[in-house]
Amino acid sequence: MSELFGGVLERGAVSEAVSDRAWLQAMLDFEAALARAAQPAPVADAIAGACRAERFDVEELGAAAAGTGNPAAPLVRALADAVGEPAGPYVHRGATSQDAIDTAAMLVAKRALEPLLGDLRGAADAAARLAAEHRDTPIAGRTLLQQAVPTTFGLKAAGWTVALDSSCERLEGVELAVQLGGAAGTLSAFDDGLAVVARVAAELALAEPVLPWHTDRTRIGALAGALAGTCGAIAKVARDLTLLAQTEVGEATDAASGRGGSSAMPHKRNPIPAVAAAACAAQAPGLQAVLSAAMAHEHERAAGAWHAEWAPLRELLVATGSAAAWLRDALENLRVDPARMRANLDLTGGLLLAERVAAALDLPNARQLVEEAAAGERPFAEALAARPEIAERLGDRLPELLDPATYLGSAPELVDRALARRRR
Amino acid sequence: MSELFGGVLERGAVSEAVSDRAWLQAMLDFEAALARAAQPAPVADAIAGACRAERFDVEELGAAAAGTGNPAAPLVRALADAVGEPAGPYVHRGATSQDAIDTAAMLVAKRALEPLLGDLRGAADAAARLAAEHRDTPIAGRTLLQQAVPTTFGLKAAGWTVALDSSCERLEGVELAVQLGGAAGTLSAFDDGLAVVARVAAELALAEPVLPWHTDRTRIGALAGALAGTCGAIAKVARDLTLLAQTEVGEATDAASGRGGSSAMPHKRNPIPAVAAAACAAQAPGLQAVLSAAMAHEHERAAGAWHAEWAPLRELLVATGSAAAWLRDALENLRVDPARMRANLDLTGGLLLAERVAAALDLPNARQLVEEAAAGERPFAEALAARPEIAERLGDRLPELLDPATYLGSAPELVDRALARRRR
Amino acid sequence: MSELFGGVLERGAVSEAVSDRAWLQAMLDFEAALARAAQPAPVADAIAGACRAERFDVEELGAAAAGTGNPAAPLVRALADAVGEPAGPYVHRGATSQDAIDTAAMLVAKRALEPLLGDLRGAADAAARLAAEHRDTPIAGRTLLQQAVPTTFGLKAAGWTVALDSSCERLEGVELAVQLGGAAGTLSAFDDGLAVVARVAAELALAEPVLPWHTDRTRIGALAGALAGTCGAIAKVARDLTLLAQTEVGEATDAASGRGGSSAMPHKRNPIPAVAAAACAAQAPGLQAVLSAAMAHEHERAAGAWHAEWAPLRELLVATGSAAAWLRDALENLRVDPARMRANLDLTGGLLLAERVAAALDLPNARQLVEEAAAGERPFAEALAARPEIAERLGDRLPELLDPATYLGSAPELVDRALARRRR
Amino acid sequence: MSELFGGVLERGAVSEAVSDRAWLQAMLDFEAALARAAQPAPVADAIAGACRAERFDVEELGAAAAGTGNPAAPLVRALADAVGEPAGPYVHRGATSQDAIDTAAMLVAKRALEPLLGDLRGAADAAARLAAEHRDTPIAGRTLLQQAVPTTFGLKAAGWTVALDSSCERLEGVELAVQLGGAAGTLSAFDDGLAVVARVAAELALAEPVLPWHTDRTRIGALAGALAGTCGAIAKVARDLTLLAQTEVGEATDAASGRGGSSAMPHKRNPIPAVAAAACAAQAPGLQAVLSAAMAHEHERAAGAWHAEWAPLRELLVATGSAAAWLRDALENLRVDPARMRANLDLTGGLLLAERVAAALDLPNARQLVEEAAAGERPFAEALAARPEIAERLGDRLPELLDPATYLGSAPELVDRALARRRR
Repeated sequence: MSELFGGVLERGAVSEAVSDRAWLQAMLDFEAALARAAQPAPVADAIAGACRAERFDVEELGAAAAGTGNPAAPLVRALADAVGEPAGPYVHRGATSQDAIDTAAMLVAKRALEPLLGDLRGAADAAARLAAEHRDTPIAGRTLLQQAVPTTFGLKAAGWTVALDSSCERLEGVELAVQLGGAAGTLSAFDDGLAVVARVAAELALAEPVLPWHTDRTRIGALAGALAGTCGAIAKVARDLTLLAQTEVGEATDAASGRGGSSAMPHKRNPIPAVAAAACAAQAPGLQAVLSAAMAHEHERAAGAWHAEWAPLRELLVATGSAAAWLRDALENLRVDPARMRANLDLTGGLLLAERVAAALDLPNARQLVEEAAAGERPFAEALAARPEIAERLGDRLPELLDPATYLGSAPELVDRALARRRR
Repeated sequence: MSELFGGVLERGAVSEAVSDRAWLQAMLDFEAALARAAQPAPVADAIAGACRAERFDVEELGAAAAGTGNPAAPLVRALADAVGEPAGPYVHRGATSQDAIDTAAMLVAKRALEPLLGDLRGAADAAARLAAEHRDTPIAGRTLLQQAVPTTFGLKAAGWTVALDSSCERLEGVELAVQLGGAAGTLSAFDDGLAVVARVAAELALAEPVLPWHTDRTRIGALAGALAGTCGAIAKVARDLTLLAQTEVGEATDAASGRGGSSAMPHKRNPIPAVAAAACAAQAPGLQAVLSAAMAHEHERAAGAWHAEWAPLRELLVATGSAAAWLRDALENLRVDPARMRANLDLTGGLLLAERVAAALDLPNARQLVEEAAAGERPFAEALAARPEIAERLGDRLPELLDPATYLGSAPELVDRALARRRR
Repeated sequence: MSELFGGVLERGAVSEAVSDRAWLQAMLDFEAALARAAQPAPVADAIAGACRAERFDVEELGAAAAGTGNPAAPLVRALADAVGEPAGPYVHRGATSQDAIDTAAMLVAKRALEPLLGDLRGAADAAARLAAEHRDTPIAGRTLLQQAVPTTFGLKAAGWTVALDSSCERLEGVELAVQLGGAAGTLSAFDDGLAVVARVAAELALAEPVLPWHTDRTRIGALAGALAGTCGAIAKVARDLTLLAQTEVGEATDAASGRGGSSAMPHKRNPIPAVAAAACAAQAPGLQAVLSAAMAHEHERAAGAWHAEWAPLRELLVATGSAAAWLRDALENLRVDPARMRANLDLTGGLLLAERVAAALDLPNARQLVEEAAAGERPFAEALAARPEIAERLGDRLPELLDPATYLGSAPELVDRALARRRR
Repeated sequence: MSELFGGVLERGAVSEAVSDRAWLQAMLDFEAALARAAQPAPVADAIAGACRAERFDVEELGAAAAGTGNPAAPLVRALADAVGEPAGPYVHRGATSQDAIDTAAMLVAKRALEPLLGDLRGAADAAARLAAEHRDTPIAGRTLLQQAVPTTFGLKAAGWTVALDSSCERLEGVELAVQLGGAAGTLSAFDDGLAVVARVAAELALAEPVLPWHTDRTRIGALAGALAGTCGAIAKVARDLTLLAQTEVGEATDAASGRGGSSAMPHKRNPIPAVAAAACAAQAPGLQAVLSAAMAHEHERAAGAWHAEWAPLRELLVATGSAAAWLRDALENLRVDPARMRANLDLTGGLLLAERVAAALDLPNARQLVEEAAAGERPFAEALAARPEIAERLGDRLPELLDPATYLGSAPELVDRALARRRR
């Protein structure tokens, strides 16, 4: 959470959705819902009425948290004071600090996922548009960064689309549930604890868990996994974009005006959105590792592992949201250069079609013949034509066989298939 | 993969399911399925007939892989030789090395998940039995490793059960799909590539993906996430077990005969299974981080990130499988000591019931009164009785209020609920 | 960086030392030093005079950074404007954005390490005092959380001391160097680039590197490694402290008044400082992993890996500083209970001395005899005395042999040794 | 540890140096040294004589380790049996399992570092040779994968050299120390424990620690940090090499004959060594994270965190060694193409020199003028010449100003400096 670096590392609306104020409001939402679920209406109304974040001093609560180990305890005191008599003493009744913070974490995640998914779907939509538009645009397929055989830019973009779409689905599938258990998870301070849990869940539109999950962090793990997986999908696209934008490749560049300049080189045009998306996505593996390692919560509340979740969960939401926002920007502002794609395809004089020529030869030693033609000094097409065994069998089919635009395999059909799946 | 440390770190059958031989067979299963899907029957039969791992020399293939960057290329050559004429040249036709290795990874994962899930379900079953048996057994609820309020050992075990069950479900939900795309993912060497993919998927009982996923690693990410989440769930139980087994706590210990001795201390009884489960589970966060960071595959095949997956995927399967096997052992051999649980509950002379007494007082300053009683030198029960405000309101209800066995909240009902869910 | 959670997760002065304002000032310090090193005095004075962070709007710079990919570029523009003619155009002359930000990172790290090392040394000093004071205080040595043989609390604290001291040394050994290379690291815009680098380094009291290190991130890696190692050392002490504070162990507890209360349990006293130290330290492995993975900087400036460092470097400094501050607090306020240590030593009726008795027996089957005595129902001392082979050899030496206070091995001498090393 | 993937992922001699047999021998070396340090000569000789790994069955020891939690306990039994009477009972006397395994870990690390450092120095030497040879060879400096200003390939290689050299130095600086403490670290079973420790250290040529370090894992953390830092340095070079080898860049390629072929594309030449180096190096961040997180050892022996170190320490040594061996291969077999470097420099028609032209103009609006010339359609040189303000000031100096070979800044001097430092 930094203003100075936030322009690069905290793009989009997730940062605000996980701000101190947002967390505070989410804790207050829990307290209001708990009051409605467990207290008579007048008490509940009095409590709920006071549950507005702007009435509380975040800095003061944070400072007081040093004495209790978490900010819920001082918030409960401040809320009770704000409510006053007679309802004040019923604030938080039956709950423990972790109930307020864990439920708030779920609410914060839920609220942060809205803009995050908005940008992620926006990125997927932009990728899908590129896939449709360039369904048949030839581009060099590259393996280990070497040109291999032709593909289409549409299929490349379709691959991005599918990965981004499946990341959306995975995120949408994470169950965000209310946490309410009281001091040690037995709901001991309620007469009808299970019913109270159900009512709080309904109030907050969160799932009702089988059990209080204060020390079962599989939910946090699943959320972290889905976020890190999303960052991985984004990182792949961002990497491709920075590679395509290379001066020596130049097949797709950032077309947004007024950005990407360098402080030292007036002529440069940096692919800022892809670079920033990559940087944000790179945060995920480590943050996820902290959250995974912190799943070993001791007994009925962890002696550190719980507190260890707060920062990385927040940062992982921000990093993923920022990566999604940057990627959307990158894809929505991508200038695609089919002519450059074609020129690059021609760089090797048809070597990309070696596989095809070998298959067309249909001789036991086809690969060897083609390899020899490829290895020599002279252009591949000439070298092929100069070998009698080849010239004889393929003759004047060679020019067509060496045309990348006619060796795209199922690329167009695969694009159709990926796009059709989206429309379901 | 170590014999020396394997007794501790590679328990269960996963290690064998991800062995070199298992990987080799899985690659051969891919080649056989591809032949059946794309070649005429006589060719397919000849190829499939040769696809038996024991016919190939793993060490030789591995050494040759140094020249090609992966073991599929030398395997294809060796398989073609083994098949001989006329079918040999049709081995692997239309596929690329990554198709063979990625599909093999999915097959290996599928096969490894069988014993892994077997042990994980076994652990969950054992936890469920403990939950049922100790539904009403009081134990101190402990937060931040401090005794808090009573709960039941059954509820603790029910929490373990739910986390292990949901880990099973998450693992079962990971889609394992065939990979087939050819040199750059366009299926260019097939006439009917999409149909071939469908047939290979059917042959191998793997899912058919929307697109070739050679550089869309969301599947690997999801699998890694589910495995790491499982390790987190296991780590929590293991941590609880080592804490419960402490000399000073002694509430649950390993009852398997003949293990846990120390080389220097003849009297010691170490909770080996829980310790080993914790050690195995601790591998996951880092292995998952490597896999997450390796999702940024360049273009149509990654220049390193793909190769970077092989070891951590394998090790993560082994670590999770081993952790599950150890945890099952730990839970199946757990000796629970309800008397010790009760003795520990009594250590603080009723302080665990302070919350209850405060609630029963139902006075605005209840918490303060109770805190003062708790803070003094004399036993809590005495101190409470000595305060007129308290004695007057609670009088002879105090002994009952201070009995932990009658302050278990909804613990028993929560156990029932968790167990009922399993039976669905 | 959060006010709400900062009371727990950002203790000490590091957070302020890595704040947006601190970063901004560090970038300005670079610009001032560069001007002094490369421009004539009047120009340098004009530039340096404007290099005060309070004159710039952090939020505005951060927002503008979205267009350039980093906050240095907009800062340079703003600084040039602030300087005005004629010196303004000479601001940043010869440098590139990364020069400003990398050098600022080193300055920020250097300034953050001051309070961090202050607290770390404070923690080590407190541990050393405990070691001295309890040089001879018997406590159960515990392996795998089982009581093993006696040791002294002093030796335990001496172990903490040595680990904290060596963490200090490792941090002090990290070379923090100036970065100056210009657009691609060739110092091409200077006539005497190497001399300029040396002067900037001298101005800022940073090391002068052999080469510009814009894409050699070994320094960042070494710093991250030393910080994560420090967190590991802290985590060990914190874990020990939470274990010692357990209700059932009670050998060392937090003695600071007014903290550690629970919102639900008026009687509880949570070991907040140790818990918070553990939570802060738990951030390190993941942040370090992000920094390690981000070392693969492409060519002369990374397309994402550089930007990926900013957040985790900052957070790792904060986490380590906060962990150190909490640990210092924990150790300075530790209430040690030798009587409880002794009572716990007696819990097993002398079983901790089994090794000693076996050695004293000096019989080939000594271990077996002792194991049999240890395994039975009756108290160990009785069981030993009841075996004629034992009684005969050890007779009335048994009581002394079973006294833990006389079986401390070299513990006191080891304490002396550890403390003597500090005084060097 | 895999034969199938080992050709790619376990290159070099480290794999053998950390094999089960190597570990076993290292444990036996500890036992022999302990006997020599603490027992009379005839006993020591009998024990030391039996300490040969080939006499023990690794698989059997590993299986037995499941009952004791580590392989040292069964090894001690087997060794005592092998020694027989009368010396057998004195095997391991005074030590605990962790002493044997921790000391073995240090010995294994020490022995593994030999080939690892050999390959790392070999890689650094190869890089240094490239730096010397190409001290003045112009190449495009690239930032964010965009061409920026010229540099020399020699300076790029010098940057690699410095990073690899400093990684060597950091690895050499890690203190590898003997561990001996007995059951709980007090050396209680020795009369003169401190002297015994010193003698064992001398026997094994390991450092003598201040205290037994069984639960102070700062050494492990420092070793892991240095290894991961080395992998980061290697990853940078490997990334550069895969980028330079791109079909569209082609400035440096793998020249080793007979490798890098593709199973589907007869013409391809993959940069296998750099790809494999990258894949190996990518393991480090996660393995390091596991080791860092495992530093929180409880009390006098960890309940899981200790056992969690064995696999990642081993794998990190292998990954780093393999990465170093591959990188050495890559650099020793690199074919550098200065003509292609020059051709790529010319791709933008002089735009790389924009900074230089702007500086030469020495006008307040120089950057703007140059930016305008760079932004237009016509070639940069022409566009510059067409602007009267520019033509007037720079006139016929323009061709020289636009020659990249004369705008290398201090690149050659920096190369000299880096190479001179090595010779010290």
